[in-house]
Amino acid sequence: MKKLDSCPKADGYRMPAEFEEHAGTYMIWPERPDNWRNGAKPAQKVFTEVANTIGKYEPITVCVSDAQYQNARGMLADYVRVVEMSNDDSWMRDCGATFVINDKGGLRAVDWSFNAWGGLVDGLYFPWDKDDRVASKMCELEQADRYRLDDFILEGGSIHVDGEGTAMVTEECLLSEGRNSHLTKKEIEQKLKDYLNVEKVLWVHEGIYNDETNGHIDNMANFVRPGVIALAWTDDKNDPQYKRSSEALEYLENETDAKGRKIKVEKIYTPSPVLITKEESEGVDAVDGTLPRQEGDRLAASYVNYYTGNGFVAVPVFGDPNDELAIKKLQELYPDRKIEPIYAREILLGGGNIHCITQQVPKAK
Amino acid sequence: MKKLDSCPKADGYRMPAEFEEHAGTYMIWPERPDNWRNGAKPAQKVFTEVANTIGKYEPITVCVSDAQYQNARGMLADYVRVVEMSNDDSWMRDCGATFVINDKGGLRAVDWSFNAWGGLVDGLYFPWDKDDRVASKMCELEQADRYRLDDFILEGGSIHVDGEGTAMVTEECLLSEGRNSHLTKKEIEQKLKDYLNVEKVLWVHEGIYNDETNGHIDNMANFVRPGVIALAWTDDKNDPQYKRSSEALEYLENETDAKGRKIKVEKIYTPSPVLITKEESEGVDAVDGTLPRQEGDRLAASYVNYYTGNGFVAVPVFGDPNDELAIKKLQELYPDRKIEPIYAREILLGGGNIHCITQQVPKAK
Repeated sequence: MKKLDSCPKADGYRMPAEFEEHAGTYMIWPERPDNWRNGAKPAQKVFTEVANTIGKYEPITVCVSDAQYQNARGMLADYVRVVEMSNDDSWMRDCGATFVINDKGGLRAVDWSFNAWGGLVDGLYFPWDKDDRVASKMCELEQADRYRLDDFILEGGSIHVDGEGTAMVTEECLLSEGRNSHLTKKEIEQKLKDYLNVEKVLWVHEGIYNDETNGHIDNMANFVRPGVIALAWTDDKNDPQYKRSSEALEYLENETDAKGRKIKVEKIYTPSPVLITKEESEGVDAVDGTLPRQEGDRLAASYVNYYTGNGFVAVPVFGDPNDELAIKKLQELYPDRKIEPIYAREILLGGGNIHCITQQVPKAK
Repeated sequence: MKKLDSCPKADGYRMPAEFEEHAGTYMIWPERPDNWRNGAKPAQKVFTEVANTIGKYEPITVCVSDAQYQNARGMLADYVRVVEMSNDDSWMRDCGATFVINDKGGLRAVDWSFNAWGGLVDGLYFPWDKDDRVASKMCELEQADRYRLDDFILEGGSIHVDGEGTAMVTEECLLSEGRNSHLTKKEIEQKLKDYLNVEKVLWVHEGIYNDETNGHIDNMANFVRPGVIALAWTDDKNDPQYKRSSEALEYLENETDAKGRKIKVEKIYTPSPVLITKEESEGVDAVDGTLPRQEGDRLAASYVNYYTGNGFVAVPVFGDPNDELAIKKLQELYPDRKIEPIYAREILLGGGNIHCITQQVPKAK
């Protein structure tokens, strides 16, 4: 497939919203023992549950290293497509392709540069070259030409779009020093407009407290549909999350989207703070250059890290009293989709959640 | 995709002939410097020519290690699909899946065990585990369930079928010590009948002289169509090939196929003996455990190692006076296909030729 020099906006391609129809979903199999405890075996079980669940609704492809190929193939359901793909870790949302479509059945992709959430400034591991090749390999599998940005760092989890001209990001992430500090905010916004083909970018100030991705939007807020945004929320003013969510609420409720609509915000209450246990910490290989997982560290737990697919919403739950509240709220917000709760503490322990480990391929129309 | 416990014959699947319609072709990118001279760069150019040529006629997928991914993607034409796949070398015919179809649009595959042409007895390299995983990975890409034979060694280059109930092999290869010496000839024949779904197996005695595959049939003879076989030939009685070809001719002309047809043999004259030069020998890394490539060694050059695809025949040529003769003969035998000659000395230096580096996916009907 081709590497393209133009941009989606110039060529009439746009990133559709996640809630539009999918052709399928991609994931990456977890394995690195310096991020996933106990040789990644507990995580592999949960990733399997996520993949098998998604596969009930739409085609699912799990990408896996050769070393883990047979193990993954054996654990995943027969209906999951398993494809070899070298990787540095398993965050398909962030290193994977951002697919764009036009209105003539065309499918292409944006292949952003990936630097492990901050490169040599505050990235989470080194090297990350295998991850950076993931998007181009997906493009070959999906037979999609790609727009490659060699000079612009972005992860899929740091953007959301409503499919009608509006993108949403956080300043905490997109203006972080380890990404595109050679560009001004205005220049970064222009990149988003050109490559996602949007007219307006909503700049939420910060994401979830202690989120090692520098506050990805996908853990904080999501478009339920155009004009409606789900926002991670807490009423506890002593929680450092309170200020972050309050600021976001105030900002969003006073903004309009690309179509001029006022934005309605729906609060999704976070679980009580989730801390790493001693046993969990000790299960992770201690290796120089990767983020340590220490006992007592607070994890960036949020139900907003859910994944919307054809006829379903896969939502992480934590064994918290607020699980039921989140499920109920999401069912109200998505009346036509089945809510699929998955106990996802293991994914959270690795640094993200269900949305972070999935990437949709939109249906070309 | 599923691993199946039954066999194609029991399930109504058969291996179609190579000259039947294809859905596409698979190849593997060459890279190992202990088999391909000068860091495989000259071979990569010829593999590129083969892939680009095939891609003009049918979908072509080139499988490549992560280490070579970007290099291969850059060298191959945009219309070639490039997919990551770990491998021990680049003989897709031999380690790849043998696809079978039924008459209801079904596509499955036979996944033979692969042991690098003789395993610890007289195999050509060690280890070969990556190669042995290639077929299962192809099955995922093609969405085909597979019949896996854990206890039966076979390479795709050691079999040909006419699509109407007849297979052709060599005794030299299929009865070799390094493959299935725990089985009798009759038991081996039964495996072929069960897994290729044929009624008759033609047992040519030997293949091409000095062929390191233990005389694969695909370098020696091929079905042009049911009842017609192309055979590598020489009139030089002093050439050790003469006895091999003469025996094959006599055997085949006195045999009938599964449908009871007498077999017509068409002679394809081999080129003059092709010997490894000093420069070629010195370009290959000397490594314990892989076959050395020594100056003066005779290579198993044969035009019969051609590949038949949708509307074309890709034939290796060697800069030999017999090149034109072979092209002319093949054009007579395949009047409706374009003959595509490719200068293929580099593939031959690695131990095979165009047929050895390709594997067809038949069109499900």
